[in-house]
Amino acid sequence: MNPGPSDNPAVTDLLGLLAYAELGSFFRLADDAALAPTLRDKGRLASLAAEEESRYERLRERLLERGTDPEEAMAPFVAPLDAWHARTEPQSWVESLVKTYVGDGIAGDFYRKVAELADAGTSELVEAVLVEEGRGALISEVVRAAVEEDPALAGRLSLWARRLVGEALSQAQQVAMARPRLAALLAEGRADDDAGGSAEDGAGIGDLASVTRLFGSIADRHAERLEAMGLSD
Amino acid sequence: MNPGPSDNPAVTDLLGLLAYAELGSFFRLADDAALAPTLRDKGRLASLAAEEESRYERLRERLLERGTDPEEAMAPFVAPLDAWHARTEPQSWVESLVKTYVGDGIAGDFYRKVAELADAGTSELVEAVLVEEGRGALISEVVRAAVEEDPALAGRLSLWARRLVGEALSQAQQVAMARPRLAALLAEGRADDDAGGSAEDGAGIGDLASVTRLFGSIADRHAERLEAMGLSD
Repeated sequence: MNPGPSDNPAVTDLLGLLAYAELGSFFRLADDAALAPTLRDKGRLASLAAEEESRYERLRERLLERGTDPEEAMAPFVAPLDAWHARTEPQSWVESLVKTYVGDGIAGDFYRKVAELADAGTSELVEAVLVEEGRGALISEVVRAAVEEDPALAGRLSLWARRLVGEALSQAQQVAMARPRLAALLAEGRADDDAGGSAEDGAGIGDLASVTRLFGSIADRHAERLEAMGLSD
Repeated sequence: MNPGPSDNPAVTDLLGLLAYAELGSFFRLADDAALAPTLRDKGRLASLAAEEESRYERLRERLLERGTDPEEAMAPFVAPLDAWHARTEPQSWVESLVKTYVGDGIAGDFYRKVAELADAGTSELVEAVLVEEGRGALISEVVRAAVEEDPALAGRLSLWARRLVGEALSQAQQVAMARPRLAALLAEGRADDDAGGSAEDGAGIGDLASVTRLFGSIADRHAERLEAMGLSD
């Protein structure tokens, strides 16, 4: 029997993943603000960090409304997301902006997936979050301006962006292996408990193939986002 | 000639001081969240940090509306506030909460001073900020509960709180020496340019005496706040 939309456990996984992703981004952005060259730029990064925190709170609230323990829902994603952050520490203010932009972009892909699959209350939340994506335009403008001022940055930042997405896909691969139910949902929009074998068995071959396709489409959208920042793949 | 309420330079000083204080608190709280023992507590501290950030933004906005460069207004307070934070790094989650509570309390005293002296637009902002003080009750409850569970904490946290306020007064003393105009306003509610000699001369003897009285009243209120947390002076 398929679970109803409001108690779909794979949607719980997705909300937990996104909630911890936002909390983690909050911490990293707050740290990175220390790299900002001026008081004004510190304030700008702090404001981006506060936005992440508010999304975290809304996702957490939604998990509570769904009758789930939010911290339990987040727990499986703490290690892979922390690992991603540890492997991608920005060395400058503009690297930190590129990371936020790339991270937001990938998160956006996941949010849209949730919107497709989830119950009405959750979809509303997701749409509200996506409406805020205006900040992406703001960040890409700042990065573009920095690259125009110092063209040597373009190559360095393009490499950086490639590393960011590479490390993200590598962590996502780990998550997909450990949580086939989530992998199936992301790959196919299938969210029934039978997809890809049980959680204990690991992901089936078919699911790994579709997860690969999903990653392919994330990489495609990543290329578009790079272009928006004036970088190349 | 006395400046009008909306271009009173000492009010600009106060708003700059509070804006940087909120931004600094944001950074420290975000850092301290890493000390929190659980994912839930990390989230709670992150939420407190985001509140500081939103106050920073409102104060900055107000400085802009007053036709002041906000970063210039904040600049004189960066060193003393950073020094305060550097000298008072919490070693635990509950120390971090006590610091937030004490820091909020002192900031509240300053906010109230601004409200007395400033133009209507600024006073509105200050009142909105003070309405949020409900979080103080929340923090003091958590601290009280921690002390009840581990009574040995009480002495340690009382010492910690004393150090926090001692270091704050020591930094404030530096600021008062360097900015007599601000010292005069804080001590007496006088905000005219003649009070306490020119900014270049340093504070006059009379002002230092009244600043000492102001500090005395901050210390009195600090004792009340300690009691609210179940600590003693």
